[in-house]
Amino acid sequence: MSRRWRREGLSIGLVPTMGALHAGHLSLVERACQENDRVVVSIFVNPIQFGPGEDFERYPRDAERDAALLAKAGVDAIYRPTVAAMYPPGSSTRIHVAAVTEPLEGQARPGHFDGVATVVAKLFTAVEPDRAYFGQKDAQQVAVVKRMARDLDFQVEIRVCPTVREPDGVARSSRNAYLNVEERKAAASLSSALRLAAGTYAGGERHPQRLREILRERLEAEPLAQVEYAELVDPETFTAPGSLAVLAVRIGRTRLIDNHDLAMEFPG
Amino acid sequence: MSRRWRREGLSIGLVPTMGALHAGHLSLVERACQENDRVVVSIFVNPIQFGPGEDFERYPRDAERDAALLAKAGVDAIYRPTVAAMYPPGSSTRIHVAAVTEPLEGQARPGHFDGVATVVAKLFTAVEPDRAYFGQKDAQQVAVVKRMARDLDFQVEIRVCPTVREPDGVARSSRNAYLNVEERKAAASLSSALRLAAGTYAGGERHPQRLREILRERLEAEPLAQVEYAELVDPETFTAPGSLAVLAVRIGRTRLIDNHDLAMEFPG
Repeated sequence: MSRRWRREGLSIGLVPTMGALHAGHLSLVERACQENDRVVVSIFVNPIQFGPGEDFERYPRDAERDAALLAKAGVDAIYRPTVAAMYPPGSSTRIHVAAVTEPLEGQARPGHFDGVATVVAKLFTAVEPDRAYFGQKDAQQVAVVKRMARDLDFQVEIRVCPTVREPDGVARSSRNAYLNVEERKAAASLSSALRLAAGTYAGGERHPQRLREILRERLEAEPLAQVEYAELVDPETFTAPGSLAVLAVRIGRTRLIDNHDLAMEFPG
Repeated sequence: MSRRWRREGLSIGLVPTMGALHAGHLSLVERACQENDRVVVSIFVNPIQFGPGEDFERYPRDAERDAALLAKAGVDAIYRPTVAAMYPPGSSTRIHVAAVTEPLEGQARPGHFDGVATVVAKLFTAVEPDRAYFGQKDAQQVAVVKRMARDLDFQVEIRVCPTVREPDGVARSSRNAYLNVEERKAAASLSSALRLAAGTYAGGERHPQRLREILRERLEAEPLAQVEYAELVDPETFTAPGSLAVLAVRIGRTRLIDNHDLAMEFPG
């Protein structure tokens, strides 16, 4: 289908998702529809980017609701392969991006980014998009995908869209569905910490150690939050120093991530 | 350029080479010209598929002769990137194919097939061919490239062309240029062993151990030959059992490979 569109001179936008669509995904879809003649949304809960003991099995799935939302948004095609179609018996190829995959999420989730890089490359070759859309919420994933696309010469423009937040600042995430009422309140500590640090940065504070302390203190003030990391890194390499504040926090059994470039005003 | 051709509905054939073109390459080019509207030949001595101590530095290079041969063959474009363009500072992505890369060449040349898979994928994304042409001479490379292309959903048909041989049976190879007169004579032991084993197979012999002995005995009769491996494997998985006889032999400082499916008559 993509090749026919391309032959007709139509541009193609791809929005890769794992389904369980929320306002964050829909903002990517909306932008893709503005910038391309045709838009494909992929829905695939990618087993190889989940580690043992992670939430692959219980990851939220709702094919009918997703399809209805995408129809309403005006997308041209949904690409929803099965696991057996994506990884048939005998398949054995993996894409590994070094360096940027190693700290933070890479440390916490070994093999995760190989799974991401591999599935995104497969989507790029299958759909051959002109542009692909990713959310800033998964900042390290964005850096990995950009690196992979550049290194493998994919002729695709990687577009990064701002994190969509709830009124209380919580970043939209399919995993928010795991949170009970108390945990959902506690989840606000992530965006609250980022807002606080961005305010301090705006006030002139540049000392990374001090800014990290502000993040940690705010997170640790929340009894339900278990901080996995709270760091300031460069948004391309994900190593210190840098102005991108990145957080991974467990709230009960649920692992949440969020980030914000402290050099920019925190929204809302 | 490829994208314009594709928009115009033209089919594209790619012949990946490391230059130092010989009749083997030209047979691939000829077939590509027959089967496609446009033909691109890439010339790139790919550093990441050479191990330490291998012949990357001394690998034969002759850009002008290659260009003249390709012009005469009627190709539409030569793609000759620099090493810095293919692997700019900061690039860090590698493609790893498991299983089929592990025995034989994979064992002898650690990392070789990661380098091959990575560069071929880059050529596929850069050129976006409909068909790509490889020589049967590098049989395990063919299996790796097929596996990689299938696993990463490349919309490219992998075409495999028969090994082109000298009158005495020696497989055409850029590395034959390393051989002195005595070594060149000794190099005929590879094809001679394959011919002998194919004849024995045609006579009804099916016992793998016996066929391997025939290969080894013929090779070991050549004083200048140092056998690295001589095995019978499956042409897709490169594990025993199978009817594909694969050889790697050192003649002096030069490492030569050759192969033949014993179920088929040996040519010439």
